[in-house]
Amino acid sequence: MRVGVSSPTLGVIGGGQLGRMLAEAAGPLGVDVIVSDPTPECPASAVAREQIVGEFDDVDTIRSVAERSDFLTYEIELVDPDALETVTDGTGVPVHPAPESLRMTQDKLVEKQRLSEAGIPVPAFHAVHGRGDLREAIDEFGYPVMLKARHGGYDGRGNFLIAEAADMDPALDAAPGAMLVEQVIEFDRELSVIGVRGAGETATFPAGENIHEAEILRETIVPARTDDTVRERAQSVARDALELMAGRGVFGIELFEAEGEILVNEIAPRPHNSGHYSIEGAYTSQFAQHVRAVVGYPLGSTRYRDPTVMTNVLGDVTEPSPASLTGVGSVFQTPGASLHWYGKREVRPLRKMGHVTVVPTTSESRADLLNTARRLSDKLTFET
Amino acid sequence: MRVGVSSPTLGVIGGGQLGRMLAEAAGPLGVDVIVSDPTPECPASAVAREQIVGEFDDVDTIRSVAERSDFLTYEIELVDPDALETVTDGTGVPVHPAPESLRMTQDKLVEKQRLSEAGIPVPAFHAVHGRGDLREAIDEFGYPVMLKARHGGYDGRGNFLIAEAADMDPALDAAPGAMLVEQVIEFDRELSVIGVRGAGETATFPAGENIHEAEILRETIVPARTDDTVRERAQSVARDALELMAGRGVFGIELFEAEGEILVNEIAPRPHNSGHYSIEGAYTSQFAQHVRAVVGYPLGSTRYRDPTVMTNVLGDVTEPSPASLTGVGSVFQTPGASLHWYGKREVRPLRKMGHVTVVPTTSESRADLLNTARRLSDKLTFET
Repeated sequence: MRVGVSSPTLGVIGGGQLGRMLAEAAGPLGVDVIVSDPTPECPASAVAREQIVGEFDDVDTIRSVAERSDFLTYEIELVDPDALETVTDGTGVPVHPAPESLRMTQDKLVEKQRLSEAGIPVPAFHAVHGRGDLREAIDEFGYPVMLKARHGGYDGRGNFLIAEAADMDPALDAAPGAMLVEQVIEFDRELSVIGVRGAGETATFPAGENIHEAEILRETIVPARTDDTVRERAQSVARDALELMAGRGVFGIELFEAEGEILVNEIAPRPHNSGHYSIEGAYTSQFAQHVRAVVGYPLGSTRYRDPTVMTNVLGDVTEPSPASLTGVGSVFQTPGASLHWYGKREVRPLRKMGHVTVVPTTSESRADLLNTARRLSDKLTFET
Repeated sequence: MRVGVSSPTLGVIGGGQLGRMLAEAAGPLGVDVIVSDPTPECPASAVAREQIVGEFDDVDTIRSVAERSDFLTYEIELVDPDALETVTDGTGVPVHPAPESLRMTQDKLVEKQRLSEAGIPVPAFHAVHGRGDLREAIDEFGYPVMLKARHGGYDGRGNFLIAEAADMDPALDAAPGAMLVEQVIEFDRELSVIGVRGAGETATFPAGENIHEAEILRETIVPARTDDTVRERAQSVARDALELMAGRGVFGIELFEAEGEILVNEIAPRPHNSGHYSIEGAYTSQFAQHVRAVVGYPLGSTRYRDPTVMTNVLGDVTEPSPASLTGVGSVFQTPGASLHWYGKREVRPLRKMGHVTVVPTTSESRADLLNTARRLSDKLTFET
C-alpha cells in the first residue's frame, strides 16, 4: 500500500453535497477528486480538483471523468448504469459500486424481490400494473398501503398513500409509469445502517435512528434509542442486505423497527444522509470509508466516537430564492456543534442546504443533544 | 450572521499543507478558498477553488488573489508584508493577521524585544552586529548560546549552536546577515499554545507538548504531560503574547517550560504544526478557527475533545525523489489513527509530507497513544 505520486484520482459522477463531502474526505487521504454535474459551480466544484459539466446519463461526460481518473463512483441514483458500464468497459477504469447494484436499487420492485428472495424481511409488496393488482394487494394487506413509482422516487416523491378506497383512483392517476404497492408498516422507529463493502472486507456502522417529516429526513440520532437486541438485529439484517450488493463502496440501508423485528425499507448504493453524523460522530466518516472502499484502501473503524445528533438544514422558503441562511451564529457559538454548508446558491422549498451535527462536550445524553440540535435548527431560517 | 450567496471567499497566499488544510476546513463552513503559490499543482490546489501561480512577494499575484476574494490571509512567513499592505490598501480587501504581525514575527530580534518590553518572559537575548556583541553576550549568558539569523530561519535553519569558544567563528561565518544571540534554555519541556484572535474575542487551545529532533517537530502530545499550574501558566503567557499581535487569525506560540516557568520561544502568525492534532483532537480545528477568525465568524470551542498524539511524516530519504510512502496500510487499519497526506509530489530529506493523528478509541493513555503513533511512524517509509 502506497500513498504519493501513485495515489489514485477518484472520479465522481454527481457533484452535489455528497460529492462535496466525498472531496472533503478524500483530501487528507491524498486522493484527488474530479466530479461531473450538469450545474456549473456545483456544490462539489469548490473543493474538487476539477468539474466536468455534463448530464448524469451522458456517456461522453462520464468518459471525460473516467479518462482523468483511476476509479469511478457516483453520488446520485439518477446516474445511468448502462452509461457507467459502457464507459468502464471502454476505458478499463473500474466503477464502484457495480452498475448492477445501481440498477437493482433504482427499481424498487426488483430491489424488494431480491431482498425477499434472499430471505431478508421486507414489508409485504406487490407489483402493480393496474387497478386490479392494486385492489388485490389491498384485499391482502388491508389499508393503508403505499403506491410507489418503481423508478425515480426519492424523499417521498413518487409515493402515494392510500388510506381508504377513495384514495385509489387519485393515486393511480398521479403515479407515473411502473409501480408497486407496499403494506404500510406501523413501525416503532425508522433506523438505518451505513454499510461498507471494501476490498475483501465488509463493515457496518451502528444503527442510527431517523426522524422523518413529510418523508424527508430531519434528524438522525446515533446510536438509535432502542435496545441492544434490536440494534444487533439491524446490523445483522444490514449485513445480509450488503451481501446482495455488487462492487465496493458505502451503502445506506433504511430499516423499519416494528415490534422488535427489522424490515428493510430501501437501499441507496452511496453515502446516505443518515450517515452524515459520522464526520464528527465516528472515527472514520462514511465519506472517508467510501473513498477508501472504492480505491481499495483498507476500511477504518465503523464505531461511533460519541453519541451524536444530526439535523438537516432544509429550505424553509415557499419559492426558490438566492440562498442566505440566518441564525448560523448560534451554531458557531455552541460547543460541540458543527455546520456543514453545501454551497448551493439557490434555496428551494425543503431542499437540503446543509446540516448541523452535535456531539457531547461534557456528558450530554442523546436527549440533550437532540434538544440542542432542535434549538439551533429553530434559529436557522432563510431570508427571502 | 449569514451563510450562503453572501458567504465570503478567502484568499490564501501560500498553498502548502497549511493552505490545503485551511481549504479542507473552509468547505463545511461554506467559505470558498483561492490560493497562490509559485509551484503549479501545489498541495492546496486540489482542494481549493483555484490556484494563482506566483511568488509570495509578488504584488501582482497577491492582487490577483485579492480581486477574487473577500478576505486575504497567508500560510507562510515568506510572504512580503509590504506587498500585502500595498494590495490591501489598493483593493480594500482586508488581510489577517495584520502585516505588522508578520513583520514583527519575521524579525526574531524585534519579536523578542516586543515580548520583553511587554514583560513577557523570554530567554535572555542580544542583538549581534559582530564578534564583539557575541563575545559580550556569552560573557553574560555563559555557554551554550544560540546564534540566530534575524530573518528567514525555520525548522532550525539559520540557527547555530555555540557550545564553546571554538564554535564562535564558524557560527559567525555561517550566519547570514543580521543576527541575534540567545541563551540556550535548559528546558524541561517544549510546549506550544495555539491562540486565536477573532472579531472581538480571543481564545487559546490547551498547551501541547512538542518533541523535536534536530529542531524539527516530530510529535505533539495534547494535553502536555505537565502539571495544571504549568499548563495554566502557558495559556496565560500565550494570552499576553496574543495581545501584542495585530489583526485576526490563528497564532502558534512556542514556549519553553523550565523549572515551572514559561518562556516564549517564538510566534508564528498562522496555523502551526503543533496544532494539527486539533482536526481530530479538538471540537474545532485550528484551521476552522483560522477561517472563522479571518472572515469574522464567531470562534468555536478551543477545548480538546480527547487526549491526542500527532506525529509528523518526514522525508526519510537522502536525495529528493518522487514521493511514494509505504506502510500506510497500518495507519488505515488502526482504529483512532488518521492519515493526513499533503499531496507533495517530491519527497526531500526531512520534508514535511504528512502527519498521523491518534485519538483514543477506548481509554488509552497519552503514553499508549504515543506508543501507537511511534509504532505507525516506524512503519512509514518512502520508497527510493
